[in-house]
Amino acid sequence: MPTLTERIAAGDRRALATLISRIEQDDPEAREILGRMHSRTGRAMVVGITGAPGTGKSALVAALARILRKGTAGQPPRTVGIIAIDPTSPYSGGAILGDRVRMRDLAGDDGVFIRSMASRGHLGGLARSTDSTVRALDAAGFEAILIETVGVGQDEIDIARQAGTVIVVETPGLGDDIQALKAGILEIADILVVNKADLPGAETATGSLRAMLGLVDTGQSGWQPPILQTVALTGQGMEELAGAVYRHRDHLRRTGEGERREQERAETDLMGRLRDRLFERWQATGRRELAEMARKIAARECSPEEAVDRLLG
Amino acid sequence: MPTLTERIAAGDRRALATLISRIEQDDPEAREILGRMHSRTGRAMVVGITGAPGTGKSALVAALARILRKGTAGQPPRTVGIIAIDPTSPYSGGAILGDRVRMRDLAGDDGVFIRSMASRGHLGGLARSTDSTVRALDAAGFEAILIETVGVGQDEIDIARQAGTVIVVETPGLGDDIQALKAGILEIADILVVNKADLPGAETATGSLRAMLGLVDTGQSGWQPPILQTVALTGQGMEELAGAVYRHRDHLRRTGEGERREQERAETDLMGRLRDRLFERWQATGRRELAEMARKIAARECSPEEAVDRLLG
Repeated sequence: MPTLTERIAAGDRRALATLISRIEQDDPEAREILGRMHSRTGRAMVVGITGAPGTGKSALVAALARILRKGTAGQPPRTVGIIAIDPTSPYSGGAILGDRVRMRDLAGDDGVFIRSMASRGHLGGLARSTDSTVRALDAAGFEAILIETVGVGQDEIDIARQAGTVIVVETPGLGDDIQALKAGILEIADILVVNKADLPGAETATGSLRAMLGLVDTGQSGWQPPILQTVALTGQGMEELAGAVYRHRDHLRRTGEGERREQERAETDLMGRLRDRLFERWQATGRRELAEMARKIAARECSPEEAVDRLLG
Repeated sequence: MPTLTERIAAGDRRALATLISRIEQDDPEAREILGRMHSRTGRAMVVGITGAPGTGKSALVAALARILRKGTAGQPPRTVGIIAIDPTSPYSGGAILGDRVRMRDLAGDDGVFIRSMASRGHLGGLARSTDSTVRALDAAGFEAILIETVGVGQDEIDIARQAGTVIVVETPGLGDDIQALKAGILEIADILVVNKADLPGAETATGSLRAMLGLVDTGQSGWQPPILQTVALTGQGMEELAGAVYRHRDHLRRTGEGERREQERAETDLMGRLRDRLFERWQATGRRELAEMARKIAARECSPEEAVDRLLG
């Protein structure tokens, strides 16, 4: 009987899906498997696609996957893994597929693997399991990995930053609130896209992005984020977008920026893991005290600040 | 010289603002002050207002603050603290005021305190500092505390859950993506509001909320979340909304649900604090090893899973 690791290495999709489910459940065996696979990771081109609701991200991700599959920008066809992050209920934990139906045609393609991830409600949980899923797809040999997130909350921004290249998607004529979100998210953008560019206001949106970009420190010398116009549903502008993704990948390699980001990511990830593990260890002995202390805090018999000191004292 | 604690207790606004700034910087002295103030908290009515961008949350928060200040629903005038959570840059950490200008008229009122909070980029950081700020306002004697968040990411949902009463704001005619968000957020709603109810589609939006609400386990026996229509900018429906907030507060008190939520919150908060403190302790000795291990992970010399074992070994 081949092991799960061997089956994944041999291209078995069902084995890969099983591993990812175990990752989501934070199964210790999944951790072990990922640990063994680590040396085979780091080869995939990882692209984060983020933007507010209504910008047509899902359609853009599907269009990008299609063109990478075909081969574009002087590059051969690539196999593509897609990870769609869904904002979900803190209670039910169920993923909502929303308009992922737009990816239905890709589901029949053997060179494409699509996975929706749901938040497990614990801080850092989604970022962690997304990172592990990227590693699983990478080790399984997927050449391009696209991570789609709703770029509004801090969590989603953290997830987008796990990618080598971040595409921020905007659209003409969104409300004021969304303008306010842009400044924060612009700083993590390597490529900006005005999608639905056939709508009125595309030039205005492009111009205002350009103006905002001028105010932002992109934190990465030598790369000027391009602003592209696309109509994902018709494929317009998609070759240019794929070209920009490949150019950015080359930039990351040439300048060492990719390595720098990789190391920063590894450090952030490691800190989260240490936090969890230290707490797990402590909890093995302190679980009952914890509930009792929470009761005292709620009853104002003890402050949270004292509680921490007493529990660790 | 009166201490900061004494000045806050005496109603000194500048002292309160100083404490909150120190909370945001995670200053150890702020922790100590909050610890001493803990016994004076638990009195405020804490209301979370959350909804997607474009729903007019800020205007609704301002209108709710105005009507609570005046006295409504058979209740006397209340002092009001407002905490506006801004999605911000993971790099610059700066808060974006966006359309908070709609609250400008409230700024001249002595019984109102408005604070924008920015994410500090570390997971859990925003939820923690929001919680501490609520406690500071509570201890300073504010009778109603309104927390405004963009209800899209998990972080924002976690923050909304810190409130005793959660108002979820929707608006007619938002896109499909937003529909997909609703199911998750509906589960934390105690009161639903269709704002901008003078726009076409208000009845449709109300009806579809009602239908979705039927599918959701609100997790709280005996409370049926009402669906209200408002036009925050004209004040339409605001008395009904304030009435529902007071009714829900009475429900929380009468059924013990409020106490149950408080204890659950205290436990979640305490777990986060323990995580941080355990990691801080470890880091005091392990900081150099951490960076070296991150380098090894990025170079594929060691997996993150092994790294954790070795560091804690």
